Parts: sequence; C-alpha cells; structure tokens
Amino acid sequence: MPRVTEQYIQRRRQEILEAAGRCFARDGFHATSMDDVIDAAGVSTSVFYRWFRGKDELVIATVTDVLRGMVVVLDDILEVDPPPPLADAVERVLAATLTRMTRDGHDTTALAVQVWTEALRNPEIHQLIAHCYEQLRDRLAELIRRHQALGAIPAEVDPRMVARPLFSLFPGFVVQRLLLGPEDPKLYAQAAQALLRA
Amino acid sequence: MPRVTEQYIQRRRQEILEAAGRCFARDGFHATSMDDVIDAAGVSTSVFYRWFRGKDELVIATVTDVLRGMVVVLDDILEVDPPPPLADAVERVLAATLTRMTRDGHDTTALAVQVWTEALRNPEIHQLIAHCYEQLRDRLAELIRRHQALGAIPAEVDPRMVARPLFSLFPGFVVQRLLLGPEDPKLYAQAAQALLRA
Repeated sequence: MPRVTEQYIQRRRQEILEAAGRCFARDGFHATSMDDVIDAAGVSTSVFYRWFRGKDELVIATVTDVLRGMVVVLDDILEVDPPPPLADAVERVLAATLTRMTRDGHDTTALAVQVWTEALRNPEIHQLIAHCYEQLRDRLAELIRRHQALGAIPAEVDPRMVARPLFSLFPGFVVQRLLLGPEDPKLYAQAAQALLRA
Repeated sequence: MPRVTEQYIQRRRQEILEAAGRCFARDGFHATSMDDVIDAAGVSTSVFYRWFRGKDELVIATVTDVLRGMVVVLDDILEVDPPPPLADAVERVLAATLTRMTRDGHDTTALAVQVWTEALRNPEIHQLIAHCYEQLRDRLAELIRRHQALGAIPAEVDPRMVARPLFSLFPGFVVQRLLLGPEDPKLYAQAAQALLRA
C-alpha cells in the first residue's frame, strides 16, 4: 500500500474516533447510531466500515484511545530520574487528557462518567476499563516506589495500596469538573501538592 | 396524629427509599418504574403515593438521602477539637456511606456513577448534586483550615482549593470499588494517610 494512502486511512480512523467521542459524550452510547458518527466524521460508509464493524467495536476503540493516552503520559514521566513530585505527574496526565478531550471547542469529558455507567452493564467495556485502570495504577505505584526510595513517603507502606488514593485524583477531577464547573489542572495539582507529602 | 402512626409512616418512607436505591442501582433510573419500587418495598400504592408523587421526586429523595448522610458525618467530625487527621475524616465518611449502601446484602454503590450520568442530562438532579457536593467541599475546607492552624498544611494555600483534591478521594473510592473490585475504606484511608501531610 503506498505510504500516502496509509497515512490518509490512519488519519480518517482518528477523525472517526474523535467524532465518535463527540457523539457519545453528547448523547450517550445507547442514543448514538453508527450513522450519527459517520455524519459527524464526514467520512463515507465504506471508509467507516473498513475500520469499525459495529458499535461495540467503535465504543471500545474510542475509550481505549483516551485511556492509552493517559498511560503513555505516565510512561514518559517514568523515564525521568529523579521522579517529578506526584502532583506534577497528576497534572501532566490531566492536562494532556483534557487537551485531547476539549479539542476544537468540543468538550468530550462527559465520556468518562458515561463509560463508568456503561461498564456496569457491559462486561467487555468493564474488562477494558479495568485493564487500563490497572495499568495506570501500576505506573502510579512505580512512581510512589521511587518517592519511597527518596524517603518522601514512608517505606513500610505498600506502593500498590498508596496508588489507589493517588489514582482517585483522576476520576475526582472529572466528576468535580462536570458537576461543579470548570476545573484547571494546574490549580488542582497545586492544591494536591499542598495536600501531598511527595 | 398519634405518635406510633407517625413513626410507622416515617419507617415506610425509609423502606421505600432503600428499595428505590436497590432498583435504581441494579437497573438504572430510566429502566426502573414506580411499580418496580412499590413491589420491592412491599408497600401499598397509596402509602407510596403519599410520599412520592412521581419518579423525579423519588430519584431526588433517594440521592438526597445518601448525600445528606455524608454531610452529617462531616458535621459530626467538625464538632471535635483538635480535628482528626484528614484521612480519618475521609474513612469515617466512606465507612458510614458504605454501611448504608450495602445494607442487607444489597450493594447500591452503583447509584453514585448512575447519578453522575443522570446529572449530565437532568438539570434538577445536576443542581441537587452540585449543592450537596458544595456542602461536602465546604466541610472539607473547614477541616483543612483547622489543620492549617495546626501547621500541618501550608498556611498560604486556599483551603477551598485544597478541598478539591481531598474531595476526589470520595468519587475515586467508588469508581475503583465498582470497576476494580472490593475496596476497604480502612485500608484505603491508611494508604491516603501515607500520601497526605495532615
């Protein structure tokens, strides 16, 4: 396949995912049809179905796209030695995810709470989120381990346990942002910094 | 009205709210009918409609019941001087709410994420949750203010800002408990204690 065509097709896939994110965030997973997404993405039906055979596949790809993005930010952070303060790491993940989910004036952060509700009745979505959340918590545990080595967090506590309240800063941010109004990742992280040891 | 009858009617109201919580948690707000709740509560239609004229009213009463319970725990904590560690306060709120939401072998914690999704499309529910969440954050800010007076948290930070990441420990607990498996408030709070200054 010539390189330009491959790039073109990849770009179309990303456009479909972003359109799907907008439709799902606005109308919910159940009220969104494939045709809604095809219209919003401005692609042909044949291009769409080359990538996604059904709605479940599209929902999974949309959610995976966001969550993988969060894991990648933490992987980058773990490359740095000494590790940044925990609140800085949280800020970078939130800022990157928020930039991605508020692109072009469309706010798709409502996807987060919709996907939690969906996970309660759809085992495949549940499994996907559980897997990605475990990955995020594993990365946070590794970051905590490094802060323990520096003496900033007590050595005797289990880093995987400490990763849980730290992880809470992500869903907590989104819930407060959606229900109580705009929330700035930088101010939120500064406040977390005042609260956290490391 | 004779006292015994008044007590009886109040108890029926609480039974209806608990039955509603079970139905909503299991089937969601939209898939639950008034008859489902009347059946689950084992009350007569006339007793039910004495309390709740419609589903919106029932949803609001069910959600208010849980959230008011959280505020009351924090009000009790604020009576104590010197203030308990922040992680202890979080544990007491979570433990009390979890006890209330897992009574008689029924786990209704899924209500939390369902109500977030519902708030995105129902302005009345949105307003109710925003109001209760503001109350919770106000109480946390007051607790933080007291820890600032003790020197445990930097005096120059705004306690209302610091209340935000602290508040995140509540939705973060519920999201992880629902999606990643059982979570014990005591272990979670111990881990938070290792993470927090105060």
